[in-house]
Amino acid sequence: MQPRLVEVRQNILKQNDILARSLRTRFEDAGLLVVSMVSSPGAGKTTLLEATLTQLRKDGCRAAALVGDLATENDAQRLARSEAPARQITTGTVCHLDAQMIHEAIAGWSLSELDILFIENVGNLVCPASYDLGENLRLLLMSVTEGEDKPLKYPTIFNTADVAVITKTDLAAAVEFDLVAARNNIQAVRPGMTMLELSAKTGAGVPEYLESITSKLEKRVAIS
Amino acid sequence: MQPRLVEVRQNILKQNDILARSLRTRFEDAGLLVVSMVSSPGAGKTTLLEATLTQLRKDGCRAAALVGDLATENDAQRLARSEAPARQITTGTVCHLDAQMIHEAIAGWSLSELDILFIENVGNLVCPASYDLGENLRLLLMSVTEGEDKPLKYPTIFNTADVAVITKTDLAAAVEFDLVAARNNIQAVRPGMTMLELSAKTGAGVPEYLESITSKLEKRVAIS
Repeated sequence: MQPRLVEVRQNILKQNDILARSLRTRFEDAGLLVVSMVSSPGAGKTTLLEATLTQLRKDGCRAAALVGDLATENDAQRLARSEAPARQITTGTVCHLDAQMIHEAIAGWSLSELDILFIENVGNLVCPASYDLGENLRLLLMSVTEGEDKPLKYPTIFNTADVAVITKTDLAAAVEFDLVAARNNIQAVRPGMTMLELSAKTGAGVPEYLESITSKLEKRVAIS
Repeated sequence: MQPRLVEVRQNILKQNDILARSLRTRFEDAGLLVVSMVSSPGAGKTTLLEATLTQLRKDGCRAAALVGDLATENDAQRLARSEAPARQITTGTVCHLDAQMIHEAIAGWSLSELDILFIENVGNLVCPASYDLGENLRLLLMSVTEGEDKPLKYPTIFNTADVAVITKTDLAAAVEFDLVAARNNIQAVRPGMTMLELSAKTGAGVPEYLESITSKLEKRVAIS
């Protein structure tokens, strides 16, 4: 059985790569920066994304979001408070987003009227690693409550991401989080990886995080 | 492509179910209680398991453990401190344990000389839901830092589990965890599900948790 499954899966992945490549071209042609977020369930993707959308729109940046979950429309409803366009992708029992889901979810959106599109993946530190979504930048969030060892235990997804964002730093003391060990573990798995630390709750580190994203926009936005 | 993948996957799952059934019979014949643990990465499976093994062995219960991770032998090394037999299963890029991995990992162990075997799955709230490991009891851990909405967002895995264990309750106030909402969400997804709350750090709730497991042992053990 196993060889046949591997072969079919390789074809699926190849098909995904082809579609992701065409998405990337469309995004580029529209002058759109696409940023995806991956993490464990509960690392704080939606909380950070809501703060991000609110601030970016306040600064005149045309931001939108797609959010993936197995079930519920809760996240899109939360993000709607930012007044940015937001669409939910519910995957049923599928453990990751793929390029086809992105393709379908952006139908009807005029991409050239947006500056930045965020894609929040299903909470999962394994499967999303294998699926290119056509994004320009992949953020990997890990919260201090998850422990310092996660890069060593889930190396593949760290290797597919561009930036490691350590979240919930307001809880670092309570959970005795060892930031030096965490940073060393990230660099052991992906040498040279950009690392940021923040708390969406207190706002600490959020301006630096926003700057790291907006610095990649074609048309620069001044973050207040 | 999709229908073929679905068909192959169904065959894989069917094969897993057959093997899981034969494992369950072997466990039963040996008088062995098998308890599996699933959760997000970082919900505290290994910390709770180390405390569990240490206490059970102190009370004369012959406990052992299998721990799954994509990479590293760290967890088995941590668990070895309890002096219980512990083996690591490293899955590479595979996002879950399956019955074949359990079958191979217990090779050479004399099951009738054990009272209880714990199986810690890969940290993932999606994929492990589909794989029966032959266990008698499946514990689902969710930490207060993940938020109250996880049962609604990951309903399938809650539906395959027997007991929901809310962990890291010492952090509940710091993250403004709403226990009533969490309990309601669990019951909405799986009415009647047994729910426990504990902190492996402070020990609160741990005796009740141990009692809920040892009450299922054929030969009762008095927990001190």
